[in-house]
Amino acid sequence: MKEITSLQNATIKETKKLLKPKYREQTGDYLIEGEHLIQEALKEALNFEKIFVTEKFIANHETFELLKASTDVFLVSEQVMKSLSSLPTPQGIAGVLQQQEKPLQFPLEGPLLILDRVQDPGNVGTMIRTADAAGYAGVVLGEGCADIYSGKVQRSLQGSHFHLPVVQKKLETFLPFLKENGIQLLGTALDEEAKIYTEFTPEKNFALIMGNEGQGVAQQFLQLTDRNLYIPIHGQAESLNVAVAAGILMYGLKGKILQKY
Amino acid sequence: MKEITSLQNATIKETKKLLKPKYREQTGDYLIEGEHLIQEALKEALNFEKIFVTEKFIANHETFELLKASTDVFLVSEQVMKSLSSLPTPQGIAGVLQQQEKPLQFPLEGPLLILDRVQDPGNVGTMIRTADAAGYAGVVLGEGCADIYSGKVQRSLQGSHFHLPVVQKKLETFLPFLKENGIQLLGTALDEEAKIYTEFTPEKNFALIMGNEGQGVAQQFLQLTDRNLYIPIHGQAESLNVAVAAGILMYGLKGKILQKY
Repeated sequence: MKEITSLQNATIKETKKLLKPKYREQTGDYLIEGEHLIQEALKEALNFEKIFVTEKFIANHETFELLKASTDVFLVSEQVMKSLSSLPTPQGIAGVLQQQEKPLQFPLEGPLLILDRVQDPGNVGTMIRTADAAGYAGVVLGEGCADIYSGKVQRSLQGSHFHLPVVQKKLETFLPFLKENGIQLLGTALDEEAKIYTEFTPEKNFALIMGNEGQGVAQQFLQLTDRNLYIPIHGQAESLNVAVAAGILMYGLKGKILQKY
Repeated sequence: MKEITSLQNATIKETKKLLKPKYREQTGDYLIEGEHLIQEALKEALNFEKIFVTEKFIANHETFELLKASTDVFLVSEQVMKSLSSLPTPQGIAGVLQQQEKPLQFPLEGPLLILDRVQDPGNVGTMIRTADAAGYAGVVLGEGCADIYSGKVQRSLQGSHFHLPVVQKKLETFLPFLKENGIQLLGTALDEEAKIYTEFTPEKNFALIMGNEGQGVAQQFLQLTDRNLYIPIHGQAESLNVAVAAGILMYGLKGKILQKY
């Protein structure tokens, strides 16, 4: 294991750049940190380009597996670890992975979640995690969504992008493609023809579109949907957080499918 | 309208302290910022102790109502506004309010949400907002929850604490009190006797307990519940975000009640 204690080390300077979106895009790499995420990647037998650990982490953990997971494992000082972390208190382990999209498999083996310009990293990560939990076949991110390889999205994702396909598509062409392939498109909106989600049973293969935090799903996409759904507001709140709304709809619709098919 | 351009101004120095929990507790005051939250407070006819606005905000908004809402309205520079804000880009308006709990009304006019040591400010705020949307009668925070008067909770709350009672209680005594008053206590857990939430119909007056992000609901409280519920995981995610889980359960149980009663 090589040791690095200097912030000026070339490997560290290079890796630190991955905290910035531009450099992630250029290199196709990204950083994950914390024991849980690293373990999730190891379960998938992913190869790390580099792994960084602190002495304290090694002292408290079984690290045999880590040493096999990358040819480049670096022992770094607390200060160096801090420079690689997007957290106020780094967790003592970080790794560099290649960005990899699991491809969507057709015919679909479950419903899809589609995000239209969801901007908050926590919302994007949480929605993917919920899609994973609810047994969805994949998540599609249209343009203008938060970058799933950012530290914040990775933290709320909790490794779900290792479990199910999370792919980026232009919705202008991808939604018509889904329709042509017999996938029922469900929007979320409060228009006159929208239906309360509990009073609606979807077809087995459907795609649910959730929209931007302030503006909802874009009109041009709502016009393509087979049906728009909404969640009734019983109290005085004006709306629900979009990740909560997605959870209610994903589980609600999944429940209908489990009952019927 | 008085004008303040100096960061050294005594009113500003005093108000800035409200960004810290300790000072909020000492004074019983708190800061809210942004047009939406201020409007929500105005709807409730709350009296602001102080209001701070920037010239830019005044130029772009109808501010007549604001001038009535407080005897102390201050025109402040962008720099001064920034010093009062917990946001990277302040929204040009902030106000000081007294912390006020709407009391819970018995008999309850709907279900309760109870939080046991939910620590993330975004989760606490989002759960209260969802309880508001789902028509719950109130939210009870046990010890160890995030401070609802912090900037982060206020942002995710979106004014819901103006709509429904959000009260702090010691759960050790409050849960037995609810039981004695015939409120059905529902926990969330994965024990052997726990039931899938979709297969359970609650009584009309129930209280749903959601727990800490990592540890769930404390054992001592789970032992007091009439029934524990869980959300099935169909995919590979280990768990759901607690605010999403709360949304699924709150709407799921509310739906059962609407069907039955």
